[in-house]
Amino acid sequence: MTQHQPFRPNGLIALLTDFGVRDPFVGVMKGVILANFPHARLVDLTHEIEPQDIQAGAFALEGAWRYFPEGTTFVSVVDPGVGSKREVIYGIREGRLFLAPDNGILSYVLRPDDPIYRLDIEKFALPERSSTFHGRDIFAPAAGRLAMGFPPEFAGTPIERVARLERPRARLDRDGSLCGEVVSIDRFGNLISSIAREDLRAFGGTQVDGLEVWVGTRNVGKIFRHYAEAKEGDALALVNSLGHLEVAVRAGSAAKTLGIERRAPMRVRKIANKKSEGAK
Amino acid sequence: MTQHQPFRPNGLIALLTDFGVRDPFVGVMKGVILANFPHARLVDLTHEIEPQDIQAGAFALEGAWRYFPEGTTFVSVVDPGVGSKREVIYGIREGRLFLAPDNGILSYVLRPDDPIYRLDIEKFALPERSSTFHGRDIFAPAAGRLAMGFPPEFAGTPIERVARLERPRARLDRDGSLCGEVVSIDRFGNLISSIAREDLRAFGGTQVDGLEVWVGTRNVGKIFRHYAEAKEGDALALVNSLGHLEVAVRAGSAAKTLGIERRAPMRVRKIANKKSEGAK
Amino acid sequence: MTQHQPFRPNGLIALLTDFGVRDPFVGVMKGVILANFPHARLVDLTHEIEPQDIQAGAFALEGAWRYFPEGTTFVSVVDPGVGSKREVIYGIREGRLFLAPDNGILSYVLRPDDPIYRLDIEKFALPERSSTFHGRDIFAPAAGRLAMGFPPEFAGTPIERVARLERPRARLDRDGSLCGEVVSIDRFGNLISSIAREDLRAFGGTQVDGLEVWVGTRNVGKIFRHYAEAKEGDALALVNSLGHLEVAVRAGSAAKTLGIERRAPMRVRKIANKKSEGAK
Repeated sequence: MTQHQPFRPNGLIALLTDFGVRDPFVGVMKGVILANFPHARLVDLTHEIEPQDIQAGAFALEGAWRYFPEGTTFVSVVDPGVGSKREVIYGIREGRLFLAPDNGILSYVLRPDDPIYRLDIEKFALPERSSTFHGRDIFAPAAGRLAMGFPPEFAGTPIERVARLERPRARLDRDGSLCGEVVSIDRFGNLISSIAREDLRAFGGTQVDGLEVWVGTRNVGKIFRHYAEAKEGDALALVNSLGHLEVAVRAGSAAKTLGIERRAPMRVRKIANKKSEGAK
Repeated sequence: MTQHQPFRPNGLIALLTDFGVRDPFVGVMKGVILANFPHARLVDLTHEIEPQDIQAGAFALEGAWRYFPEGTTFVSVVDPGVGSKREVIYGIREGRLFLAPDNGILSYVLRPDDPIYRLDIEKFALPERSSTFHGRDIFAPAAGRLAMGFPPEFAGTPIERVARLERPRARLDRDGSLCGEVVSIDRFGNLISSIAREDLRAFGGTQVDGLEVWVGTRNVGKIFRHYAEAKEGDALALVNSLGHLEVAVRAGSAAKTLGIERRAPMRVRKIANKKSEGAK
Repeated sequence: MTQHQPFRPNGLIALLTDFGVRDPFVGVMKGVILANFPHARLVDLTHEIEPQDIQAGAFALEGAWRYFPEGTTFVSVVDPGVGSKREVIYGIREGRLFLAPDNGILSYVLRPDDPIYRLDIEKFALPERSSTFHGRDIFAPAAGRLAMGFPPEFAGTPIERVARLERPRARLDRDGSLCGEVVSIDRFGNLISSIAREDLRAFGGTQVDGLEVWVGTRNVGKIFRHYAEAKEGDALALVNSLGHLEVAVRAGSAAKTLGIERRAPMRVRKIANKKSEGAK
C-alpha cells in the first residue's frame, strides 16, 4: 500500500443524512456528538437527501468533500439497512475521515487504494442501542470520538472489500451521439447529467460550438459559459460547477419548463458545419 | 423539595421552534443570542414543528433532550399566545435548563418535582419589545444570558403551577385489544403511536410473537426488530428508537402507502396459538 | 465623507442565500469559509429565499442585520447574474460588513453615505473558478478572509454607484385611503405589507381605532396589538415585529384563508365616527 496522508482531526464534523429537518433526528445526533466531544464544530452538508437514496447521497458527498479543510470528519447516514447486519465503515482520503454504513455511499470518495476500516461498533455505541436509529446510537458517538482524536487505527479493523455503487457513465450511442442521463435535479430545477467535462473533451475536443445538447426530445442548442448568456425563460446547456453537463432555464426551472425528470436521457450531438448549414 | 442537580451551563443552546427555515426568524433569534452571549454554541433541534402545534413540540423535545450533555440550555418557542398575558417559564431537570412559554410545551420534560420559575421578563427583554415576536425580544436574550451563567434563581420567581398537556395514553379496549393512536408521522412516513414499550410489556409480556398490530383497518402483522426484516414495499410494526410502537413501510412511506393520518387508531391484538392456527 | 464606525470582525459570519437546504451548496460554501478561516462561527439567516428573488433577499436582510452584534460579516448570495460581468461589492454599516453581488440586494441596508467597495475578486477567488457557483468560488473565500481580519480597505476599491432596488412605498390613494401591497408572506401565512408604522402615523396619527384595514377585497377591521386578541380562525391586522402592517389569521394562515398572494393590495381607511355609525 502506498503512503497515505494521515488524518489529523480539526474538530469539524460535516453531516449528510436523509433525516430531513422536520423531525429532531439531526438535532439528536448533534446532541450525542457534543456529549462525546464538547468542542465539536458541526456543519450540515444536507439532510434532505431523498429517503434511502444512497446514490444521491454519494453524489452530494462527492461534490462537497474537497472544499472542506483537511482534518474534517464526514458522517454520511443514508441507511436503509439500519438494524440489519450491514457493517459500519470509515476510510481516510487526503487527510479527511469518512464514516458511513457499508452500502456504497462512500463509493465516489474512497478509492480502492485508500485505507478503509470496519468500525468496532461495540467500542462506540450508546449503552442502550436501538435497531432503528444508528445515526444517534452508533454514528454520532463514533464521529464525535474520531473527530476528538480517537486513533482511527484502533477504532476498527482494516478491510479490503466494501459495497460499491456503479457510476452512471456517458457512452457513445450508435447514432454517434454522446449519451448520458439526468442524475440529479437541484433546487433551481437545473438538470445535472452524468456527462462530465472529460467526456465532452473526448467526444468533441474543445470546440463546443460544434456541439448541441438534447435533453429528452428537446434540443437546447450549444453549450454556454454561464446562465446569464441566455434570455430569460430560455433553456441552455453549460458545464456546471461540479464539472458536469447541465441543462438550465434562465430565471426559471428547467425541470418544470421542459417537463424532465431524473433519469431522462441527455445527449450531445455534433452539428454540421455552419457554412454548409447556411448554404442550404 | 428533594435535592436537585444544579444547572452548570456548558455554552450550548438547543433551539426548537415552529418558525420554519424559510423566513429569517431563527437567524434573527441567533443574532440576539450571540449579541448577548458571544460564545454561545447553537444547535437546531428543529424549526419545522407544525405552526402552533404545542404538543408536537412537546413530543420532539421529550425525545431529544436526554441526548444533550448536562449544562445545555433548551429554548422551545411554539407560542400561539405571543403578546398575550401568558407567562414565560424555565425549569431545570438533570442539569439542563428549559425555557419556553407557559403553554404546556415542557409537559413531557419537567416533572412536578422539578424546580420551575416564572421568568422576570423585564430583566431580559430587548428595549423595544414587539408583541408578535417574543422569540427575538424575550426568549433569545434570556436564553443567551442564562446560558452564559446568569443564575437561574435570580432570573425569575419559583412557581408551582404551570400549564400541562395531557399525554395520549394507550388503553385496553372492550374487545381486549391495546388501543392507541398515531401521534406523529416522521419524514419517512413512519407512523409513531402513543403505545410505549411499557404498555406492550404490560399487555403481552415479552412474547411479541403472540401479538399483531393494526393501524386504521389494516393488519400489519407481528412486531419486527428492524426495518430490513420486511420485504421492500411491505408494512411492518416495530418498537422505534424512542421506545414507541411504530408502523413503517420498508423502503417506502407508511403514511402514503396505507393512507393513514395523524390521530388514526393503532391497536395491538393477541393472536390465537400458532399451532391451532396451523391446524385449521 | 463623515466618520464611519470601523469594522472589527468578531468571527461571526451570517449567510443568506437562495440555495435551499436540499442540495449541498450551502454546506460547500461553509467548507470553503472554514478552509480559509478555521475559527469562523457560522449562522444561517435563511437559504430559502425564492430562487433569484433579489428583493425578498433584501427584505430578509433588512429585518435581520441589526440584531447581530457589531463585527458580524454578512454574506448574501442571491445571484441571477452569476458568471456575467456583475461586480461583487461589500459595504460597512454600524460596524457590520456586508458582502454581496452588485444587484441591489444590499439596497435596504447600505445608505448612500456608507462606505462601499468593489471586491478585488482576483485576491480571493479559488484557483479553479466556475462561472456558475460564485458562492463557493468567490463569496465564501472572501467572506472567510474578511471575517478573519483581512483589512476591508485593501480588499477592493471604493465605489460610489451600486445597483439599487426601489422600495415599494405606501401612497395616498384618490379615495383617501393609504394604499400599499403585500410584499411577503411568511411561514405562518401572515401577509406582510409595504405599509410601515411611520406611514400609519402620518396617515391617522396614533388613533388606530379610527382605522380599518383591507387586503384584496376583504375588510379585516381595526388594528390589533397581538394575535391572541382575535378569535381562532378570524382575520386580524396588526403592526408586526418589523414595524410593518400585517394581516394574519389567528391559529391559521391568512394567505390560505383569504386566498391572498404576494403583490395583492393592502389598504387602510379612516372609518366614520362610531357614534354616527351606531345611529344608523
